Amino acid sequence: MEKKFAELKKKLSEVSAINSAAAVLSWDQQVYMPSGGAEARAASTSALEELAHVKFTSDETGALIEGAYSWAQSLGEDSFEASYLRAAKRDYDKIKKLPSEFVGEFSRTVSAGIEAWTKARANSDFKAFAPHLQKILDLNLRKAEYLGYKASPYDALLDLYEPGATKAMLEPVFKKLADGLKPIIKEINARAGSVSNDIVKGDFDEDAQLALANEIVAALGYDLSRGRQDRSAHPFTTDFSVNDVRITTRTHRDYLPACVYGSIHECGHALYGQGTPQNFDFTPLAGGASLGMHESQSRFWENVVGRSLPFCRWLLPSLRKHFPGKFDKVNAEELFVAVNRSAPSLIRVESDEVNYNLHIMLRFEIETALLEGRLKVSDAPAFWNAKMQEYFGIKPAKDSEGILQDIHWAYGMIGYFPTYSLGNLISAQIAEKLTKDVPGWKELPERGEFAPILGWLRKHIHSQGRKYLPEQLLKRELGEGIRVEPFLDYIKSKYSRIYGF
Amino acid sequence: MEKKFAELKKKLSEVSAINSAAAVLSWDQQVYMPSGGAEARAASTSALEELAHVKFTSDETGALIEGAYSWAQSLGEDSFEASYLRAAKRDYDKIKKLPSEFVGEFSRTVSAGIEAWTKARANSDFKAFAPHLQKILDLNLRKAEYLGYKASPYDALLDLYEPGATKAMLEPVFKKLADGLKPIIKEINARAGSVSNDIVKGDFDEDAQLALANEIVAALGYDLSRGRQDRSAHPFTTDFSVNDVRITTRTHRDYLPACVYGSIHECGHALYGQGTPQNFDFTPLAGGASLGMHESQSRFWENVVGRSLPFCRWLLPSLRKHFPGKFDKVNAEELFVAVNRSAPSLIRVESDEVNYNLHIMLRFEIETALLEGRLKVSDAPAFWNAKMQEYFGIKPAKDSEGILQDIHWAYGMIGYFPTYSLGNLISAQIAEKLTKDVPGWKELPERGEFAPILGWLRKHIHSQGRKYLPEQLLKRELGEGIRVEPFLDYIKSKYSRIYGF
Repeated sequence: MEKKFAELKKKLSEVSAINSAAAVLSWDQQVYMPSGGAEARAASTSALEELAHVKFTSDETGALIEGAYSWAQSLGEDSFEASYLRAAKRDYDKIKKLPSEFVGEFSRTVSAGIEAWTKARANSDFKAFAPHLQKILDLNLRKAEYLGYKASPYDALLDLYEPGATKAMLEPVFKKLADGLKPIIKEINARAGSVSNDIVKGDFDEDAQLALANEIVAALGYDLSRGRQDRSAHPFTTDFSVNDVRITTRTHRDYLPACVYGSIHECGHALYGQGTPQNFDFTPLAGGASLGMHESQSRFWENVVGRSLPFCRWLLPSLRKHFPGKFDKVNAEELFVAVNRSAPSLIRVESDEVNYNLHIMLRFEIETALLEGRLKVSDAPAFWNAKMQEYFGIKPAKDSEGILQDIHWAYGMIGYFPTYSLGNLISAQIAEKLTKDVPGWKELPERGEFAPILGWLRKHIHSQGRKYLPEQLLKRELGEGIRVEPFLDYIKSKYSRIYGF
Repeated sequence: MEKKFAELKKKLSEVSAINSAAAVLSWDQQVYMPSGGAEARAASTSALEELAHVKFTSDETGALIEGAYSWAQSLGEDSFEASYLRAAKRDYDKIKKLPSEFVGEFSRTVSAGIEAWTKARANSDFKAFAPHLQKILDLNLRKAEYLGYKASPYDALLDLYEPGATKAMLEPVFKKLADGLKPIIKEINARAGSVSNDIVKGDFDEDAQLALANEIVAALGYDLSRGRQDRSAHPFTTDFSVNDVRITTRTHRDYLPACVYGSIHECGHALYGQGTPQNFDFTPLAGGASLGMHESQSRFWENVVGRSLPFCRWLLPSLRKHFPGKFDKVNAEELFVAVNRSAPSLIRVESDEVNYNLHIMLRFEIETALLEGRLKVSDAPAFWNAKMQEYFGIKPAKDSEGILQDIHWAYGMIGYFPTYSLGNLISAQIAEKLTKDVPGWKELPERGEFAPILGWLRKHIHSQGRKYLPEQLLKRELGEGIRVEPFLDYIKSKYSRIYGF
C-alpha cells in the first residue's frame, strides 16, 4: 500500500512540476514578457495546462487514489497520508469532471481575454472586451454544468475558490456586513474633511519605494532567498514551490501607499506560501486552505497590522530614510490617520477597509446576475455605474475606472471576488483570537517584532496547508465559523477614533 | 497528404510549445530565480524536457514524418514542406536514439551541475564540481553511444551543435588558424605597451550602461517589442518564439566594454532569431542552421561591425551622453584602439579577437581528451593550466579563473566550444561577401545605418532558418565552405594598423 502511495506521490509531483512551470510562464507574462510574446505564450500555457490536466485526471491517478484512500484514512484523520489523500481526492473528483479539450479551450480563451482586457482597459473600450467576457461567461457556465450544482451555477464556481461556500451562505453574510458598515460610512462621510492623506501624496522616487518595500517585507518575515519582489501592473503573489514564492508590487510616483500596502498585502500571501511545510511541496497539500483563508493573511498584514498605529511608529523612520526631508515634520499619529483615510473611491484596489467590502458586493451582484442570465454583457457597464451611484454616490466617467478595472474576469475567474470579503472577516477573527493567545501582540510591531505574530499564523494556519477545508480549519483553530462581528467591531473602534464619532 | 502534414505540424508545434516553456524556465533560472527555487525548478525543467521528448519521439510522430516525407520532397527541395520534413526527420532520427529516461537523467544531472558549478566557481573549488563533471562526461559518452559515431565519440556530440562537423575536419582548420595567428600575436605582444584601454576603464554607472546597451541594440535593429534585455552572470540569448527573443548582458562598473560588446554580441544572436520567418515559428525550421552559424552573427556584429572605426565614430556621442565628462577628450580613433586592445587573458569571454580562438583550441583539446579517456577529470585543472602557459604564457592563480570559468560543461554541453571559432571564421567570410554585394558597407555604421547590413543578413542567412545544413547554406549563399583565410586577413589588416607592424 505504501508502494501505491509512493507511486501516487511521484505522479502528482510530476503534475505539480508542470503546474509550477505554468505558473512561471504566467509570472513572466505579467512581469517581463514583451508584447510580441503573447501568442506563443498562450500556446505554451495551454499546452502545459492540458498536459497537467491529462496526467492528473488519468484513470491511473484515479485508481491510485482509490487504492490508497482507505489505507491512508486508517492512519488517522490528521496524518500526512490521510490529509494527502483527502486533498487529492477532492481535487481529482472536481477536475476529473472537466474534459481536457475544455481545459485547453478555457486556457486559450483566457490568454486572449487578458490581452484584450489589457488593451480595452488602456483605451477604456468595454465594447472591445465584451465578446471576450461573453465567451468567458459561457465557458464558466459550461464549467458549472460539468462540475454540477444545486441552487445556482455560481455555487459550482465559488466552490473552486472557497470550497464549501455557496451563494445562499454568502448573501446573509453580505447583508449583515452591509447593514453594519452603512452607519459607519455615514459617520465618516459626514466628517470627510477632517482627515487628510496629503502627507503620503506628492513625489516619491520609485526606486526608493521599491527599496523600502523590500525592507518592509523582509522585516515581516518574507524570505528573499525563497522569493523575490518585482513590479507589475496588478500586484500578485505566485508560488512556484514552497521555496520560490514571488510577489509583485506597483509604484505610483505620486501616492506612496499603493506600493507600501500593496507589498505588505502580497507579502501576507507569500508568508502563507513560504510557511507551507517542506514535505507538502509539490503535493496536493501545498497552498492555502482557500482563497478566503489566503486573503485573511494578506488583509491581516496589510490592514490589521500594517495600518495600525504601532506599525506606523515603526515605519516612520524608514520613510524618513528613503524619502529624505519628506517626513521630518510628520508624527506617527498623523501617518496612521493618513493611511487610514476613508472615502468613496471608484477603484477597488484603492479603496479603504471600510468601503472595500461594498466593492465586492457590487461585483458579487453583477457576476451572479450575468451568470444566471439576469443581466446581459452589453448592459453590464450601466449596471455597474448604477450600483456605484447607489453604494458610493459616485459614478465612473469611463469604463477603465469602472467595469474594466479588474483583471479577474479576463482571467476567467467568476466567483473569486467574494473571497476578498471572507478574507477581511477572517482577518478580524484572527486578530480577536491572537488577543487571547498572544496578549499585547498589537504593540509588537512598534518594535519591529513581527516574529511572535508570524509564529502564531505559522502554527495555526500556514503549517496546515490544504489539510482541512476552510470551515474546518476555522473551527479547529479559532473555534468558530465565519463571523461578521469581529470585523465590524474592529472597523468601528478604529474609525470612530480616527474620525471622532 | 496535406492532412497528414497538418497533423504533423500540430504535433510538432505542441512540442515547440513545451520547449518554449522550458526555455522560459531556464531564462528565469539564470536571470531572476531566487536560490531557494533551484530544486523545484530542476523538477519542472526535467518534467518538461521529458514530456517534449516523449511527444516528439512517439511512434505517431515517426509515422507522420515517414508518411509525408516523399510527398513533401516532391514539392521541390526549397519548398517549405520539403525543408520542414528534412529538418523534422533529421531531428527525429537523432533524438529518437535517446531513451526518454536518459533525457530525464541528463536534465536532472545538468540542473544539479549548474548549481554545483555556480558555487564551485564562487569558491574556486574544482573538487566540489569534479564529481558533477565526471557524471556529465559519463552521460555525454552514453549519449555519443546512443547517437553513434565513426571515428570519435566527440563527433556524435559536435554534430548536435554543428551538424556535419567532425573532429577530423576541425583539426586542420584549427592548425591553420593557430599557425596564422601565432606570428600576429608575437608582433602584438612585442608592442604590448603601445596600446592602452584606460579610457574604457574607470567608474561607469551600471544603470547608464544598461540604458546605453538598450539604445545600441535598438539601433542595430533588435525589436524590443519582441524581446527584452536583462542582466545575468553569463550573457545569453534565448528564443521563446520568433516574437520573444531575449538577450541578457552584464555590467562591470569598472570596465565598460563588458556590457557594450556583450550586448552587441547577444544582439547579433537575437537578430538571427528575430529574422526567422513568421511561418517557421514553432516548427523545426525555427532557429539557426547551427551554433557556428549563430555565432557568426554575434561575432559579426560584435567584432566586425562593433569594433570597427566607423562604429566607434557613431558610438562616441552616445558614450558622451550616458557618461557625462568621461569621453569629452577622447576621439573615435582612440576609442577604436582601446576596444581592440589585444593581450593574453585568463578569461575567454574577456579575450580579444586575436587570442580568442586559442582559448577555444584549449577547450577543444581538453574536452576531446576527457571524452576519449586520455585525461582524468582530476588531472584536468593541471592540464588546463599547462595549456594556458603554453598558449598565452600566463597561468590562472585559481580555478575560478581557469577551468571553472565557463558554464558550458556544467550545462552538459561537450563539443560546443568549437562552434565559437567556426563563428569567427564565418563572420569574416560574410564580411568578404558583403564587400562584393554591398559596396561601402563598412562605412555605413558611422551614420548609424545598419539596415542595409541587417537586410543582407536577413535575406541570405536569417530568412533560411534551419532549412539547410550549415555547410549547404555557406555554399548556397557565400559560394564556399569554411575558410580560414578571410579571418586571418581581417585580423592581420586590423591589428597591423592598430599596433603598427
